[in-house]
Amino acid sequence: MKNSIFDRFLPKENKFFLLLSEMAESISLESALMIECTKASTHQEAVDLYKKIKEKELECDVIQNKIFEELNISFITPFDREDINHLSSIMDNVADNVNSCAKRIMLYSPKYIPESATQLAQLVKDAADCITLAVGELDRLKKNPVKITEYCQRLKDIEHEADDVYEHFLIDLFENEKDAIEVIKLKDILHELEKATDMAETVGKIIKQIIVKYA
Amino acid sequence: MKNSIFDRFLPKENKFFLLLSEMAESISLESALMIECTKASTHQEAVDLYKKIKEKELECDVIQNKIFEELNISFITPFDREDINHLSSIMDNVADNVNSCAKRIMLYSPKYIPESATQLAQLVKDAADCITLAVGELDRLKKNPVKITEYCQRLKDIEHEADDVYEHFLIDLFENEKDAIEVIKLKDILHELEKATDMAETVGKIIKQIIVKYA
Amino acid sequence: MKNSIFDRFLPKENKFFLLLSEMAESISLESALMIECTKASTHQEAVDLYKKIKEKELECDVIQNKIFEELNISFITPFDREDINHLSSIMDNVADNVNSCAKRIMLYSPKYIPESATQLAQLVKDAADCITLAVGELDRLKKNPVKITEYCQRLKDIEHEADDVYEHFLIDLFENEKDAIEVIKLKDILHELEKATDMAETVGKIIKQIIVKYA
Repeated sequence: MKNSIFDRFLPKENKFFLLLSEMAESISLESALMIECTKASTHQEAVDLYKKIKEKELECDVIQNKIFEELNISFITPFDREDINHLSSIMDNVADNVNSCAKRIMLYSPKYIPESATQLAQLVKDAADCITLAVGELDRLKKNPVKITEYCQRLKDIEHEADDVYEHFLIDLFENEKDAIEVIKLKDILHELEKATDMAETVGKIIKQIIVKYA
Repeated sequence: MKNSIFDRFLPKENKFFLLLSEMAESISLESALMIECTKASTHQEAVDLYKKIKEKELECDVIQNKIFEELNISFITPFDREDINHLSSIMDNVADNVNSCAKRIMLYSPKYIPESATQLAQLVKDAADCITLAVGELDRLKKNPVKITEYCQRLKDIEHEADDVYEHFLIDLFENEKDAIEVIKLKDILHELEKATDMAETVGKIIKQIIVKYA
Repeated sequence: MKNSIFDRFLPKENKFFLLLSEMAESISLESALMIECTKASTHQEAVDLYKKIKEKELECDVIQNKIFEELNISFITPFDREDINHLSSIMDNVADNVNSCAKRIMLYSPKYIPESATQLAQLVKDAADCITLAVGELDRLKKNPVKITEYCQRLKDIEHEADDVYEHFLIDLFENEKDAIEVIKLKDILHELEKATDMAETVGKIIKQIIVKYA
């Protein structure tokens, strides 16, 4: 599709929005797989899901490189080049954190995966869907920044919810898991999902920076 | 006060400086409460102080949103809009880290709170006071950047002092606390204060970026 | 040398590239010392190497301050002032992380230093050499960004390799080290090197931002 005639005539401006949307959708699919991964009933099932998550993460890398290359050959961009690049770079970090979480589940083989991991993965998915919506509004940003500002606020709220889930998970863990090594493993695994929501909040902050710049 | 007649006639330029100053003072008050919280003699006292710290953190959120809104309706700003927004966003992170520390004390109920926590909270307070002074110089920045550069250097020094305190706390902890879960808890709690000084140093870096831009 | 007649006539543009190159070389030397430090056969040897590493880190601080001062007195800079300042600031973070790692080895006195620490230090050294090459291309960036883009990609690859080494180190540690306090110590020590490669990747991202801006 990338080299179709349609694509060649597409205005540059739209290209970037389409690529950012594609990336947001990949992150959304990746986090849906992550939810499944936290519910895997066998280690093999978790490993198989990790492989699929890895694929989505690589997709994001490819899209991010494509955005970078397009930025270098385009004369006209909807926003300053560096803002588009920064945005895609931090979106890629969300994908990286999710991938890291799944990788650690595969590598550390924890004795069990707590319910909170599923909740956190769901919050990452919510954040990814919110990024998808926000990115979908980017071309209307200069006309009406109200909706997109709300999505940014939602990303901040999700990050706070994820903090809560993560902290309550830690209390439970400290109270009930007496094996300190297991504590370290699970803390590390879930921390990656908490960091994914931090990064999603940063995506919101970058979008707010773009709003402020073009207001 | 926000809607007073006086306020309505205040030049836009001053508004941002006033809001940033208000925010810096909230962080300073928040970290003063944090010092008390590390000295709390009962868990209930720590919980009560956490509630007051949370209030200060919410104040910062409100001010940050107000800055964002003002940026979007102001034609003239003293610096580029995105610099003011970035500065307030990272100042908000300092407030978040302090709040996280107090929250973790409340949630984890560690067996004791080490003296180093008080020292770190004091350094965060010093950093917050230094940010207050630096922000107070922002309107003179273009005329005389010497003083404000010194404050930025001071924020870097405070961060190094905090690193030292945190590392020496860890040595003590590794030597004397045999309960690994307790080690993880205290490490996590004090780490938030160390991160608060990192963020305060980043505030200094952003101010240096502004100096460099307008030099 | 700084005040030589030669220096006074050197075009401003070259000065910044020279200072950034000096800084990259200091980081490279610092990480070469770090490799040795991970192989130290006695604690005293590690402490002596830490002192040399600290010197290199201080060199970077001095250069970074010099860049900042030069930016404030130069009318013409090869790129926007804030980009040069940002770049040097994150390069300084790489130096800080390496220094932190050595400091923690000195302070925590772990029972042994794993082979993976040497591998990670080697990757930091590779990254520092790559930054040296990339910085050396900065003055040709506008004519030919292909080579420098490859160095940025290499920094990303190194970060992924470091992730792998760090994660496999953790698996080994979880399986073989039954003393949880020792697990926490070693995890903390090696984490600083992993973070150094993260920062080196961020250096690559900033350079890519500069490429995008001036493409």
